[in-house]
Amino acid sequence: MRTLKVTMAYRGTRYHGFQRQPNAVTVQETVERCLSKVLNEPVTVFGCSRTDTGVHANCFVFHVKTERQIRPLNFVRGVNGELPADISILSCEDAEDTFHARFSCCGKEYLYLIHNSESKNPFLTDLAHHYRRPMDLERMQAAADRLVGIHDFKSFCASAAKTENTVRTVYSFSIEKLGDSVKMLVKGDGFLYNMVRICVGTLLWVNEGILKPEEIDAVLAARSRLAAGATAPAKGLYLNRVFYDPQAMEEDFCFQRE
Amino acid sequence: MRTLKVTMAYRGTRYHGFQRQPNAVTVQETVERCLSKVLNEPVTVFGCSRTDTGVHANCFVFHVKTERQIRPLNFVRGVNGELPADISILSCEDAEDTFHARFSCCGKEYLYLIHNSESKNPFLTDLAHHYRRPMDLERMQAAADRLVGIHDFKSFCASAAKTENTVRTVYSFSIEKLGDSVKMLVKGDGFLYNMVRICVGTLLWVNEGILKPEEIDAVLAARSRLAAGATAPAKGLYLNRVFYDPQAMEEDFCFQRE
Repeated sequence: MRTLKVTMAYRGTRYHGFQRQPNAVTVQETVERCLSKVLNEPVTVFGCSRTDTGVHANCFVFHVKTERQIRPLNFVRGVNGELPADISILSCEDAEDTFHARFSCCGKEYLYLIHNSESKNPFLTDLAHHYRRPMDLERMQAAADRLVGIHDFKSFCASAAKTENTVRTVYSFSIEKLGDSVKMLVKGDGFLYNMVRICVGTLLWVNEGILKPEEIDAVLAARSRLAAGATAPAKGLYLNRVFYDPQAMEEDFCFQRE
Repeated sequence: MRTLKVTMAYRGTRYHGFQRQPNAVTVQETVERCLSKVLNEPVTVFGCSRTDTGVHANCFVFHVKTERQIRPLNFVRGVNGELPADISILSCEDAEDTFHARFSCCGKEYLYLIHNSESKNPFLTDLAHHYRRPMDLERMQAAADRLVGIHDFKSFCASAAKTENTVRTVYSFSIEKLGDSVKMLVKGDGFLYNMVRICVGTLLWVNEGILKPEEIDAVLAARSRLAAGATAPAKGLYLNRVFYDPQAMEEDFCFQRE
């Protein structure tokens, strides 16, 4: 039995997230249908993560088990020929039998994209959060720095979530502006339900003066969703990178920003 | 009577080009409808250019005549509040009475965007031409250089066009690659029907070895649409800049590339 490690990108707009669901179109069932066609056998896709409705992926990893002797490049071409325009297979490689897209994963990076301008950008309608107010990046970065490290992120977890252990490690949280685009990159060992979107929403509160950067510590300590800011819209969020090599993760590891 | 010079951006996917047409949705009628609502009077929009179905604009200039004493920022906000998500007003200013978006224009710049990769990019579905073959940018640039200057571009004009004078000046034609994106920027005093798309299609023929770079001279001399390459898809084309100041144009003027 071969284990194939596959990387794909998708625009999440049309999908109710990654994971298969009754009565809703998801990325998983769409990919499984196309894979089953190409491999000519029923296929189950094991994803690295769930993503929410409307959330995108620049890089999403999944694995499949198959007996077929298809070459990786032919796999990529064949599956892309079946997939709709908003999902694209980027690469495929043989992996160890023990490889599991979700359980072998040691960390992830999310990108949150804000279009910061008076006028909307017609090319980013469902691909960025349009935010009109001026942004004080230094102030927001000071707040973001307080989220880096090992913390109990219960305040930054959707209240509907049933996770028991809400301690996570955020390795880095950077904010940079290029023209009208503000990019936030968050890297961590794992993320709670809606965690990145609540972090971003809270940083926007800091920008708007509702919170001071140093009050992030109290928000963390509160361990209550009510202490944090609003949940930023899904359409600005991208799963950006998925790590399976702890070495590669550690390279960027930076609790302390210089 | 005030003359307002307005800049907008639009995603052309849903529209049958800029210009009003019976039985087809165009950018002009959509903008006129929203402007008439905001100014509370019938408004005619004079555009700097026609664009084809599916062609985009990063920067499209139009002018309108009005008696209303609305402030430019309120105009931008009001009209953006009415417009659909794929059209956005970027700026508005009072102009001289004699200003005309089309006749005062002394030059334009088009961008042609190619996504050069085996796999498609799900975020660029209708925003770039997906081209899988390897690209030899040096070879293409050598061909593009031969299009720069004052030439009869009849070979690069859709055969349906009725233009008598087919001589145009191309000031610059640059090709650059950033990751998987290849950007071609063409600046000229004016462009014939489909001229940029036929230029790009011909450069792709040069890339594929169908034409040699030095054969561009013969394609120009032929004065026949049959001599040039295929018309590249509309979805990769953007009206990128519109010039009203000959000084600003001349700054980039470069018949000779160093």
